[in-house]
Amino acid sequence: MNEAAQTLDGWYVLHDLRSMDWASWKLVSKEERQAAVDEFLAYLEKLQKADDEKTGAHAFYTIVGQKADFMLMTLRPTMDELQELETEFNKLAIADFTIPAYSYVSVVELSNYLAGQSDEDPYQNAHVRARLYPELQRSQYICFYPMDKKRDGEDNWYMLDMDKRKELMRSHGLIGRSYAGKVKQIISGSVGFDDYEWGVTLFSDDVLQFKKLVYEMRFDEVSARYGEFGSFFVGTILDGDKKETFFQI
Amino acid sequence: MNEAAQTLDGWYVLHDLRSMDWASWKLVSKEERQAAVDEFLAYLEKLQKADDEKTGAHAFYTIVGQKADFMLMTLRPTMDELQELETEFNKLAIADFTIPAYSYVSVVELSNYLAGQSDEDPYQNAHVRARLYPELQRSQYICFYPMDKKRDGEDNWYMLDMDKRKELMRSHGLIGRSYAGKVKQIISGSVGFDDYEWGVTLFSDDVLQFKKLVYEMRFDEVSARYGEFGSFFVGTILDGDKKETFFQI
Amino acid sequence: MNEAAQTLDGWYVLHDLRSMDWASWKLVSKEERQAAVDEFLAYLEKLQKADDEKTGAHAFYTIVGQKADFMLMTLRPTMDELQELETEFNKLAIADFTIPAYSYVSVVELSNYLAGQSDEDPYQNAHVRARLYPELQRSQYICFYPMDKKRDGEDNWYMLDMDKRKELMRSHGLIGRSYAGKVKQIISGSVGFDDYEWGVTLFSDDVLQFKKLVYEMRFDEVSARYGEFGSFFVGTILDGDKKETFFQI
Amino acid sequence: MNEAAQTLDGWYVLHDLRSMDWASWKLVSKEERQAAVDEFLAYLEKLQKADDEKTGAHAFYTIVGQKADFMLMTLRPTMDELQELETEFNKLAIADFTIPAYSYVSVVELSNYLAGQSDEDPYQNAHVRARLYPELQRSQYICFYPMDKKRDGEDNWYMLDMDKRKELMRSHGLIGRSYAGKVKQIISGSVGFDDYEWGVTLFSDDVLQFKKLVYEMRFDEVSARYGEFGSFFVGTILDGDKKETFFQI
Amino acid sequence: MNEAAQTLDGWYVLHDLRSMDWASWKLVSKEERQAAVDEFLAYLEKLQKADDEKTGAHAFYTIVGQKADFMLMTLRPTMDELQELETEFNKLAIADFTIPAYSYVSVVELSNYLAGQSDEDPYQNAHVRARLYPELQRSQYICFYPMDKKRDGEDNWYMLDMDKRKELMRSHGLIGRSYAGKVKQIISGSVGFDDYEWGVTLFSDDVLQFKKLVYEMRFDEVSARYGEFGSFFVGTILDGDKKETFFQI
Repeated sequence: MNEAAQTLDGWYVLHDLRSMDWASWKLVSKEERQAAVDEFLAYLEKLQKADDEKTGAHAFYTIVGQKADFMLMTLRPTMDELQELETEFNKLAIADFTIPAYSYVSVVELSNYLAGQSDEDPYQNAHVRARLYPELQRSQYICFYPMDKKRDGEDNWYMLDMDKRKELMRSHGLIGRSYAGKVKQIISGSVGFDDYEWGVTLFSDDVLQFKKLVYEMRFDEVSARYGEFGSFFVGTILDGDKKETFFQI
Repeated sequence: MNEAAQTLDGWYVLHDLRSMDWASWKLVSKEERQAAVDEFLAYLEKLQKADDEKTGAHAFYTIVGQKADFMLMTLRPTMDELQELETEFNKLAIADFTIPAYSYVSVVELSNYLAGQSDEDPYQNAHVRARLYPELQRSQYICFYPMDKKRDGEDNWYMLDMDKRKELMRSHGLIGRSYAGKVKQIISGSVGFDDYEWGVTLFSDDVLQFKKLVYEMRFDEVSARYGEFGSFFVGTILDGDKKETFFQI
Repeated sequence: MNEAAQTLDGWYVLHDLRSMDWASWKLVSKEERQAAVDEFLAYLEKLQKADDEKTGAHAFYTIVGQKADFMLMTLRPTMDELQELETEFNKLAIADFTIPAYSYVSVVELSNYLAGQSDEDPYQNAHVRARLYPELQRSQYICFYPMDKKRDGEDNWYMLDMDKRKELMRSHGLIGRSYAGKVKQIISGSVGFDDYEWGVTLFSDDVLQFKKLVYEMRFDEVSARYGEFGSFFVGTILDGDKKETFFQI
Repeated sequence: MNEAAQTLDGWYVLHDLRSMDWASWKLVSKEERQAAVDEFLAYLEKLQKADDEKTGAHAFYTIVGQKADFMLMTLRPTMDELQELETEFNKLAIADFTIPAYSYVSVVELSNYLAGQSDEDPYQNAHVRARLYPELQRSQYICFYPMDKKRDGEDNWYMLDMDKRKELMRSHGLIGRSYAGKVKQIISGSVGFDDYEWGVTLFSDDVLQFKKLVYEMRFDEVSARYGEFGSFFVGTILDGDKKETFFQI
Repeated sequence: MNEAAQTLDGWYVLHDLRSMDWASWKLVSKEERQAAVDEFLAYLEKLQKADDEKTGAHAFYTIVGQKADFMLMTLRPTMDELQELETEFNKLAIADFTIPAYSYVSVVELSNYLAGQSDEDPYQNAHVRARLYPELQRSQYICFYPMDKKRDGEDNWYMLDMDKRKELMRSHGLIGRSYAGKVKQIISGSVGFDDYEWGVTLFSDDVLQFKKLVYEMRFDEVSARYGEFGSFFVGTILDGDKKETFFQI
């Protein structure tokens, strides 16, 4: 039997992508639209409160292209809270003018491939905690994609032994680190929760860095031979007035 | 000709996943909604009666994310009863406000890979019966996914001989057993009934155990080389008041 | 050039699977629903008349799960008659409350892999005729699935020579025969007609036999290495009063 | 660099497959339906005029099964004319009662694999012209499917050298020719135009010949190792009164 | 670790493909339709102004077949501007009569595989700038398709070393160059932005050149072994009066 990498697990994550049904949205009165937006802004404020109190986190971005109009990403200590936030959103008036586009369920994860040896409880380590329960910076751009490690003939990640995987992950990690300060990266695990094995969420103030990072990694053996990617979603932040003007007709 | 594993077969199973059409649901009057919920609660009570009388079983959970809003899992001694329950649900008022999301038809199954040698009729064995006609505990979380064994070039489960399969299943089973007390697992066979070969339903009070179990198994050769997985659905229980409040606007 | 197996071809077959739009169906008056059902029952009677006169055959079953609500399978001497029956159904009132779910176009086929050598015209052989122009028994359960033979690297059925294919089909056929009396099997060819190469329709009074037969065959090299399967549909017969009560609200 | 086969290119082709929205179609008045059919018949007459004047060609057939209700195939000297005919159809009243089902864009093509050596301009050769700008006979049945040549590991058509491809195409062509008089075949190229590399349209008065031809070819190495097929569509001619009665309720 | 090719990146690109909902479009009054068209023409004029001022570019074409009715391609210096143009389009009246068909997010890209050695800043090179910030000629035809480089067993582009990739790209580039004057080609990179790795947009006044170019390239090893293609979209220009008549009923 091959050895699984141990993981540290933090907040649960829901990526919720929606398209606006613009035609229906325009059909209702300006007042009805405003009331729906106000109710939604109050919902966002409640989310922000959790960010402020560090009892959770959220991000709200447009998605460029037709895959979705916006993505609401929420992080919470329990799966139950994610479910409640989702149901609460569905009961908002604005939800009736949205069309489900994609969603992803996962949990923030640190794998031990790169871990040092220590007797310390990692969940008490401040650096680890900051990554498991991340404060989300308000970067201008977001990129999200789910991914698998391949199990395909000779290219089977899960048949490699632990040492080989460690070695491969080390060089992979070096690329990620070389983007420190340019791209913030949140890896969340979704084995048993959703259709891919991981979700990757990237934040940056320079959207081109997403392309540079993902392209450079594609030549690294971990991605080149073992990476299998789902859809990529890229978007711009909806903050300040944009949270409101985005919906204005 | 290669030898098929013998199976023991218990109750037939229908996993029925639905999304709410929240916009339509909000359009009707509070009274109409309440009547529809009351009628549905009566339907659920009838299901519970079968659980109580051990003439069947059911589970009712939300699904996190957009794949579905809820899953109703029913187990019955005959395929006909499943079909009747499905048609009965479709004729409920609440069904008009749901959108079919996914369904799965299978039968609870025990394979003989791990069986001891005995002359006893296994269908009379109390332990076996408890697994073929399971009482469903009301765990906080559920996880469901369908799966195949691969038939792909060198990775062809069905071309392995019986001894090799037995050996592989033994180590696979050990992982499952190491989660005893943490995850309850129901395997149902669907060859000839639905698009994958098995359905796996997991119950736990700790949602993270689903991820740990499935991830650990992925490194085991049975999954690593031979497992092919469909969609994963994860959710939280709808019991007590939640059966009603979930639908309240 | 490799040698194709000769086939004997009988009646053309249309599997027509539909879901009910229950919400719309409930919206119309009881009288309108009754009129639509009566019209449909008259259509079914006309189909039954062809069965009685042995100028065709049909089967009418529910489908368990969300893939479809019912399947209407019709067999006729010409493709034109199938097309006319389909158009006639579409013009029935009840059709307006159905949603197309799946369909399959094929022709009943006997391959000569297992044929003995004889100078007789097989189309005059009573046993052959009974299989090419089958009388459909009213079994309690039906199972339908389309399938291909693989053409994938080393696993390429169509690159095997005739002798090898004959040998493989012989052992495959033995499994089928061991289910004689338990499962009736109709193989129809669809190369050039639909997206898979064959359709398989199974009838039985014991639904578990479908699982046993298909599972046992999966370990046989013909299926294990060369079989590629589409969706599986399983259902229960709609006969007698059920033809009417199924639609009653 | 490997050598591409030269092609001769004739008329551009649009296969336009539509389903009727029968429920909506029945909702409007008999007069409105008749007006829509009359307008559509005038459109078809205009198409026929191009056939008569040999400035184009068209075919109008039902499709058996749920994939589509009818297929309108049009051939014209320019892509612009195809686009104009499509837009003209969309503006007809009857188009509002149709649901797009599938379409395919290609150009009639003769490959030079089988060409003799000659100094003659092939576009002036009467036999070649008759194939590039074909007159469509009104056969009782039609069959259409798109296809690719595989590029998959060892089975990569595009990595074969010209001589090997010529040799393989020769035996492939012999099968096609053995159906002369029974099946008329139009090959159209769609590389750069649509999602597969070729479209194949077959015409016959004996629908079973489609199955025989495609099945026999499947054992030929060109198809067995290198063919990849899209959906198959089969139908019956809509001519004479049928052009009108097909739409009558 | 393998070496990624460096890229030069220019304007961001959105390909936005839409189908018309012709039935709804015909339902509204001639005046309402005219107002919607006028508003849309003003939007197009604003796009044209950016072309004129070389602060961006756009192209507006029909798409032949059912995949879409038209494609609006916009190029801008920032992702934010693309997002704003998309949202602005969604708020136009005409958008309510369109159905999203496909979209693609990328950035104009020049790879350094073919680059000479020079100390010059390539972003200051006039020839490079003309390709990164292209002026779009109003050719009669457009062709768009997304593509990947394969990572599949032995055919893994990303496991090749830089020298091998350079050599392969050289011969690939020669084909492209041999179409100079006949086909203008814009390559845009979409790694990290959308589901394929590149988008290819071709312009020509002879639509057959798209087929010739793509077909010839398919025999080149870069495409034959390593190319993986998405959907192909081909269309004719909507300029002058056609911008208006296309929408007229």
